[in-house]
Amino acid sequence: MSFNTFGKLFRFTTWGESHGPAIGCVVDGCPPNIALSEKDIQIDMDRRRPGKSKFTSQRKEYDRVEILSGVFEGKTSGSPISMIIYNKDAKSRDYETIKNKFRPGHADYTYLLKYGIRDYRGGGRQSARETASRVAAGAIAKIVLKSFLGKKFSVVGGVVQLGILGCNKNNWKAKEINKNPFFCPDKKSIKLWEKYLLAIRKAGTSCGAIIELRANGIPAGLGAPIYSKLDSDLAASLMSINAVKGVNIGAGMGAAFLSGEENSDEIRNFKGKIKFKSNNAGGILGGISSGQEIVASFAVKPTSSILSSRETIDKKRKNTKISVKGRHDPCVGIRAVPIGEAMMACVLLDHYLLNRAQCG
Amino acid sequence: MSFNTFGKLFRFTTWGESHGPAIGCVVDGCPPNIALSEKDIQIDMDRRRPGKSKFTSQRKEYDRVEILSGVFEGKTSGSPISMIIYNKDAKSRDYETIKNKFRPGHADYTYLLKYGIRDYRGGGRQSARETASRVAAGAIAKIVLKSFLGKKFSVVGGVVQLGILGCNKNNWKAKEINKNPFFCPDKKSIKLWEKYLLAIRKAGTSCGAIIELRANGIPAGLGAPIYSKLDSDLAASLMSINAVKGVNIGAGMGAAFLSGEENSDEIRNFKGKIKFKSNNAGGILGGISSGQEIVASFAVKPTSSILSSRETIDKKRKNTKISVKGRHDPCVGIRAVPIGEAMMACVLLDHYLLNRAQCG
Amino acid sequence: MSFNTFGKLFRFTTWGESHGPAIGCVVDGCPPNIALSEKDIQIDMDRRRPGKSKFTSQRKEYDRVEILSGVFEGKTSGSPISMIIYNKDAKSRDYETIKNKFRPGHADYTYLLKYGIRDYRGGGRQSARETASRVAAGAIAKIVLKSFLGKKFSVVGGVVQLGILGCNKNNWKAKEINKNPFFCPDKKSIKLWEKYLLAIRKAGTSCGAIIELRANGIPAGLGAPIYSKLDSDLAASLMSINAVKGVNIGAGMGAAFLSGEENSDEIRNFKGKIKFKSNNAGGILGGISSGQEIVASFAVKPTSSILSSRETIDKKRKNTKISVKGRHDPCVGIRAVPIGEAMMACVLLDHYLLNRAQCG
Amino acid sequence: MSFNTFGKLFRFTTWGESHGPAIGCVVDGCPPNIALSEKDIQIDMDRRRPGKSKFTSQRKEYDRVEILSGVFEGKTSGSPISMIIYNKDAKSRDYETIKNKFRPGHADYTYLLKYGIRDYRGGGRQSARETASRVAAGAIAKIVLKSFLGKKFSVVGGVVQLGILGCNKNNWKAKEINKNPFFCPDKKSIKLWEKYLLAIRKAGTSCGAIIELRANGIPAGLGAPIYSKLDSDLAASLMSINAVKGVNIGAGMGAAFLSGEENSDEIRNFKGKIKFKSNNAGGILGGISSGQEIVASFAVKPTSSILSSRETIDKKRKNTKISVKGRHDPCVGIRAVPIGEAMMACVLLDHYLLNRAQCG
Repeated sequence: MSFNTFGKLFRFTTWGESHGPAIGCVVDGCPPNIALSEKDIQIDMDRRRPGKSKFTSQRKEYDRVEILSGVFEGKTSGSPISMIIYNKDAKSRDYETIKNKFRPGHADYTYLLKYGIRDYRGGGRQSARETASRVAAGAIAKIVLKSFLGKKFSVVGGVVQLGILGCNKNNWKAKEINKNPFFCPDKKSIKLWEKYLLAIRKAGTSCGAIIELRANGIPAGLGAPIYSKLDSDLAASLMSINAVKGVNIGAGMGAAFLSGEENSDEIRNFKGKIKFKSNNAGGILGGISSGQEIVASFAVKPTSSILSSRETIDKKRKNTKISVKGRHDPCVGIRAVPIGEAMMACVLLDHYLLNRAQCG
Repeated sequence: MSFNTFGKLFRFTTWGESHGPAIGCVVDGCPPNIALSEKDIQIDMDRRRPGKSKFTSQRKEYDRVEILSGVFEGKTSGSPISMIIYNKDAKSRDYETIKNKFRPGHADYTYLLKYGIRDYRGGGRQSARETASRVAAGAIAKIVLKSFLGKKFSVVGGVVQLGILGCNKNNWKAKEINKNPFFCPDKKSIKLWEKYLLAIRKAGTSCGAIIELRANGIPAGLGAPIYSKLDSDLAASLMSINAVKGVNIGAGMGAAFLSGEENSDEIRNFKGKIKFKSNNAGGILGGISSGQEIVASFAVKPTSSILSSRETIDKKRKNTKISVKGRHDPCVGIRAVPIGEAMMACVLLDHYLLNRAQCG
Repeated sequence: MSFNTFGKLFRFTTWGESHGPAIGCVVDGCPPNIALSEKDIQIDMDRRRPGKSKFTSQRKEYDRVEILSGVFEGKTSGSPISMIIYNKDAKSRDYETIKNKFRPGHADYTYLLKYGIRDYRGGGRQSARETASRVAAGAIAKIVLKSFLGKKFSVVGGVVQLGILGCNKNNWKAKEINKNPFFCPDKKSIKLWEKYLLAIRKAGTSCGAIIELRANGIPAGLGAPIYSKLDSDLAASLMSINAVKGVNIGAGMGAAFLSGEENSDEIRNFKGKIKFKSNNAGGILGGISSGQEIVASFAVKPTSSILSSRETIDKKRKNTKISVKGRHDPCVGIRAVPIGEAMMACVLLDHYLLNRAQCG
Repeated sequence: MSFNTFGKLFRFTTWGESHGPAIGCVVDGCPPNIALSEKDIQIDMDRRRPGKSKFTSQRKEYDRVEILSGVFEGKTSGSPISMIIYNKDAKSRDYETIKNKFRPGHADYTYLLKYGIRDYRGGGRQSARETASRVAAGAIAKIVLKSFLGKKFSVVGGVVQLGILGCNKNNWKAKEINKNPFFCPDKKSIKLWEKYLLAIRKAGTSCGAIIELRANGIPAGLGAPIYSKLDSDLAASLMSINAVKGVNIGAGMGAAFLSGEENSDEIRNFKGKIKFKSNNAGGILGGISSGQEIVASFAVKPTSSILSSRETIDKKRKNTKISVKGRHDPCVGIRAVPIGEAMMACVLLDHYLLNRAQCG
């Protein structure tokens, strides 16, 4: 119900603006007695952090997460886990020039219309900086799920489409993902992607991306029919990420083009193990996990802050132009990988707990 | 939070199985003093109703909605509006043959795994019959929005892709939609679609569809940043519809393929009226409506109940085959049009009320 | 969050006005596979039903509950359980005379101010008739709790104060409660109470009551610190009953008058069993059940509809007088016993599920 | 729904343990464009702060509140307001002695049973230190309500019963309350109360208290029937405060002893102004505010940490004794005054927003 809270039983509330003193996150409903340290969380924080390669924003966000509550003697206590990340590299002056103009593709215009007040410093609350808080919450969700489901559990995301360039999903290797600056699961695409993105960057423009998320080790029975379908909660979670405009579960939008025979996944008992012969459903039938791999993907629009001059209006509603010079990524989609993983992990844990509540 | 409730301030709860005595819906949080009658709601009910043409299920659902509470002397009273729709054409015997087998593409298997019990009669709770309740709730949402926003307000959906056949969206005419059995907005596509769907039907197979929804007359400022983004709530609402596997807002998944210049919608003051030069954002920036047309689309997978024999397992986990003979649609996506409209209307009204609460 | 929904995981939504065609209730989140029939629920319905003795309203509410969904082959299916109770004895004409006046002590005035519209027929939505729905939901909660906790579980309420007459709580015998028309647990008080209430009735006046609720067989660990304290949720649940104006947990308001030594319950290990030497805490410490008996009580104000003439205003805000002639109870508090039990049972089941979710 | 979040539209989430680095609070849903500074909030923080007089805990909590987000150029921005209060005087060693024993009247035992882990340092999450966060949230609620309702709005609390000593409520003077160390509204009671509490303190024991809250300038129409009754939400809010065991609205538990004539408040039009001749309803009819003064009271049990030796068990369930030597208040009820005001203010603002949403 809340504007800044996500989740039902495993819930987190985020706060903070890109140029305030700090951002943070309060995780509520976390099961107790699970080993947790700042170090565990920092691993995912570092994956999201910009400034690591030439392909992402040069803003240096140190993103050091500090736990302020909810952990006692190295274990979760069942109390809310408050985490804070200080904004160390926030230079307000960078943004003075865009104070009076609305950047196309950004929420400047809608924020001002809605609230009658707008924190123009780097996007304020609309900044993607908020997603650092989600990654922290997601890191906790992953740790809890691992403690419940064991080593077979994983949530892994990869960029499968970089602008107009796809990769070969048959080559998906989870281990490759963290080895290249694109979180690309297909080793063979890297070289071409490097050239492509450098060209995009030099041209001062930007491109979009599609990220695919895969969760394994998820038991059947998570999710719920009707308004808490696993598909529905995943869609909400991914569509809440900045710049995301499309979400697919399994075959997704592509399902429209299939025949009934092609689409519905046949079921087989292979020597005592129930398997599906395909996975167009993305591991979710009727909103409930089937025990298959859960597969979702989402599209991130191209970065709106580009170097070329764009038509817009100013605060007085007068026509003008704007070209953004602040830090920016040629493809914000890349950094969305750990964010997508975080959201999926939170949804899965939430439904794990919901299922435990109703179905024991 | 609830499994069978949708919405935050304008909320509805649905109940009922396809072969129980009735299904229904309780709408809570409806503003008072708005003229409302069963007749008003029935119009949308009839649009969703199957059995109207040879292209949709032959099940005759009369779908007569009755209001049991919340309306006093022809006006909403502020109390919960309970609506009931009796199941008049429910023949339980039709489904005896599939009692012990799991239909591929259906939720039979996951329901049983989750709950340990399964109402096998026509899908029970998983049946698309539940969506009749949503259409009733959505009809109320539309009426309330019209009373608040005036005649310029509308929410209209149309099928823009029928299996492998698209239509020309430039020919979109809202008035055409209710004149053909496909809810297709492009008159020129009808003939070909007729032939195509008849062929699909004769072959005993099925196809998917893409439905596009367009809302007009929506003021800027609805929605909220972060976890109640209008995009996010729309995605959740549409992905909660049976058989939906993908959701786009504006350019949607296609945004990944655009450049920053192509994607971000430039803003102009045309003689005192603020307009955008394009609408890739689907009328939503940073989760908040911009005053443009709101555009969302979603994909419905092909009907899973088809005539050809499919591999599956039975309740004892033994390999077997199944071919469904019950009533079915060659394309369930067609009937999803009024359902999609209903969900969008509910989300918009919900955010209208939320915005009125926080921003006055 | 919702106006007409109660609960977090085990939730019910009620609807209906006293003089509409029916009232009802949708229970969501009920665990599956639990034996449930209309008969089981009817037992509690009959206990609440008015018209049974000369001490309660002469309105004949048959209160026959019908289950419309959520039960399959005699067991809960995990889907929402919709229940309906038709209003068979609703004579709208009875209430014509009070159409234009606000009854003191009733919500007539505040409803009209809030909604700008008012169903004047017998209180409409404000009528205590709504509580029949709660009793139905509570009956389900009791059945589920019994299936989880076994025979040692019980929730029992009794009237311990009838107007100015208390009973001796040391004589509390649960078995006595259903044997007398007052739900009084102390056999010795009955005779005096009979005389007293007959006198009250003859005089055309009314009296209040205090109801005490006792739950046994509740494991330690239910509840939560801070905003979901078991005390807090019980208080909300009981204060939501019509005409309730005060709630105590354990020693309640009386705790203010005790010393620290008298109040805090000492803990002892009696041959391996942990017991408390007293129960001023009402079985709840820090919002969490301690394994002791849970004890709560609440006060019901005297019936506002009395025969004597009362000063008030009419719809045009003119001073006038009113004397009510419709059916009424000399003490509505008596019928609050099964309602209080129902609310407590729902809160306990809700927290049972919440605890199972977070703490496994 | 959440364990550590309070409210529906105006929501706050608190976090932190008494002996962690800090405690804090995130306020979500606050209307934008309202002047707000740390100074405004600090006024209420200082009223709650212990260590101010000999009658309250000698722990020196500086309770300096810092705003980390949600305020831009001196005004609320509509984004979540994060506030932090560092724990400067937390000496963990004080609590080593009680590490292995359960203090009677405290939540030590139930926390350990629930979570299987317990932060024994000064109560951890169960410590009343958490209430500092509520006071911060309540201070914001008061400021927002004042900006909406004007100067006539106020929420004021006072201690009306100190252990066995009541005060004369007819002498209630709001201005007196902050002039004495008891928050007592009746000047004439102070002297006796001083002697009494000093004696209590010297004896190493403690006493309870009753606090009365009065809100003025509240328009009619706030609240909702059934499960969001203003009474119900106030009861939940007050019962969620540490050590509170009873809540009354208006006449409260005392209503049980009144006749229908005495209890129901007659309505009069006094020269165009609607007034009630009494206020047993506490300004709330059918869960909705009537425009009268809102009156609620609650009982705080006597401090459980007292100097005398008490029977209890230790972590190994062995019988033992305990006497607490840490800092404590002879009457924790006194400090509950600003906390009660805060909770009432939050409930009122929440319902103000809810009413604005549904009823415009």
